[in-house]
Amino acid sequence: MLSFSDRLALAIAEKRTPVLVGLDPRWAQLPVSFTDGVGEPTEFDFAEAYSRFCHEVIDVVAPLVPAVKPQAAFFEQCGPDAMRALSGVIRYAQSKGLVVILDGKRNDIGSTAAAYAAGLLGRGSSPWSADALTVSPYLGDDSLAPFIETAKERDAGVFVLVKTSNPGGKLFQDLIADGKPVYRHVAEWVESASRDALPPRSPNPYSCVGAVVGATWPKQLAEMRQTLRSCWLLVPGYGSQGGGAKDVAGAFDERGMGAVINNSRGIIFAHKKPEYAKFGEKKWQQAVEAATLDMIDALAAETTAGKLR
Amino acid sequence: MLSFSDRLALAIAEKRTPVLVGLDPRWAQLPVSFTDGVGEPTEFDFAEAYSRFCHEVIDVVAPLVPAVKPQAAFFEQCGPDAMRALSGVIRYAQSKGLVVILDGKRNDIGSTAAAYAAGLLGRGSSPWSADALTVSPYLGDDSLAPFIETAKERDAGVFVLVKTSNPGGKLFQDLIADGKPVYRHVAEWVESASRDALPPRSPNPYSCVGAVVGATWPKQLAEMRQTLRSCWLLVPGYGSQGGGAKDVAGAFDERGMGAVINNSRGIIFAHKKPEYAKFGEKKWQQAVEAATLDMIDALAAETTAGKLR
Repeated sequence: MLSFSDRLALAIAEKRTPVLVGLDPRWAQLPVSFTDGVGEPTEFDFAEAYSRFCHEVIDVVAPLVPAVKPQAAFFEQCGPDAMRALSGVIRYAQSKGLVVILDGKRNDIGSTAAAYAAGLLGRGSSPWSADALTVSPYLGDDSLAPFIETAKERDAGVFVLVKTSNPGGKLFQDLIADGKPVYRHVAEWVESASRDALPPRSPNPYSCVGAVVGATWPKQLAEMRQTLRSCWLLVPGYGSQGGGAKDVAGAFDERGMGAVINNSRGIIFAHKKPEYAKFGEKKWQQAVEAATLDMIDALAAETTAGKLR
Repeated sequence: MLSFSDRLALAIAEKRTPVLVGLDPRWAQLPVSFTDGVGEPTEFDFAEAYSRFCHEVIDVVAPLVPAVKPQAAFFEQCGPDAMRALSGVIRYAQSKGLVVILDGKRNDIGSTAAAYAAGLLGRGSSPWSADALTVSPYLGDDSLAPFIETAKERDAGVFVLVKTSNPGGKLFQDLIADGKPVYRHVAEWVESASRDALPPRSPNPYSCVGAVVGATWPKQLAEMRQTLRSCWLLVPGYGSQGGGAKDVAGAFDERGMGAVINNSRGIIFAHKKPEYAKFGEKKWQQAVEAATLDMIDALAAETTAGKLR
């Protein structure tokens, strides 16, 4: 199997866009056909609807984008049946040629971190089979190392939270220590680990160790592109959280590579947005397709991702 | 239902000890009776063995201690069947009178954090039904608030990571910003949120918002007891990670309340330790009982928890 980084680069080159579609199923926002006739949903109802909905989103976006990002929380919210459904969704996306980044933000002390990595990371070599996983850095280097080791062994990837997209992210991430913010300390460790993980003589400048930097901080995003030279950037916060195509321009290298830009609600629940309401609840998949194409066009127009076209 | 904090205080008073038994099933360390005859274990084998093992640990410790702490990672490692088993283990522990703190170290941005809280937190009111959950602070205040809100609504509890027990915890937690370490900034926010969560005129000085502070940093633990005046402290790192009874003395208030001290491997896999090897693999439950009683005695001898006896 190719490395995670090479799989992601190839998928972006093939689809000619860095759009990452977030799979965040929420019961109240599903098209009515998924919830109609269900009274008080049971755990099985949630699992069934989330599975079917995500499969049908994947059917629309798989020809258009390189990767999807299921959010573990929305599945875990609904219990073990839904966590089984998540595993099926990941495998289905992979069967359709998509790279799957599982958004779990997991972490723990070393030997326990290794257990999360073993369970979640690795296409075809773990119960959940994700190509990559998001992880949280608060527990430090010995908590991040097991994820990186597992990623190397299984040709998978890791995205470490550096600067998150939510307004409250600044509370601790922006504290200034030794003249620079905490997130920059984290970024420097991540870049060092990422550089160490680069295969020798690889033509691909990015390794299996990436970073999460929010679209809601355009200046810091451009600054992080410079710091995190060996890292894929996973950029959340586009669309519903307020980031636009111009805001993420700084995430890319001059070839339009080096970043994937996530949009969850703005794509999968596009039928709820005024600009796509014309499709109606029944043609919700056409709304998903239109929103995806519009985002592809916006990134191509406003960023170096246009060079991929 | 009583509040989480009152349930925990009552359980400690009733069992007269603050020992918290960590449920960290690991296949390679299970007593041979759980793994004998299983070749290459399937996901079902893992789930079955972990469920049975944890039930049998609970049978031994339920009369002796107030609470248990299942580690989500070891169940998630083994797939959806094991995550279902975890839910059963939590309910069984509660049926035996134990308070259950689920160690998940979850977090995400606000609306997603709310999904984790909805799925994991709340005895009898969520799929996993935990009395309390550990959460990570890197994403800031708006990521912690949804857990605290859900805890209040469901009479559950939250333990925020402040100073973790692993050696690498210091990498980012001990960075000095504005003259004090990052973990102290986190602690001050947590204490403020905890104080806000205290019910008016409660005789119990601790609220539903607690903190995790490792036994491996005795000086900081005593300092955190002073800072986190409204917080239950969850103290990991006793035993296998090197902390002893004297090291955790600073975690308690003068009544022997205010903290629970976790021991996982040192209790549940006691039959592997030289001092309890005399029981042998077959009498592993007697080793669990002996190790639990020894820890109860050590804390009673070396800390104010002795006043509970």
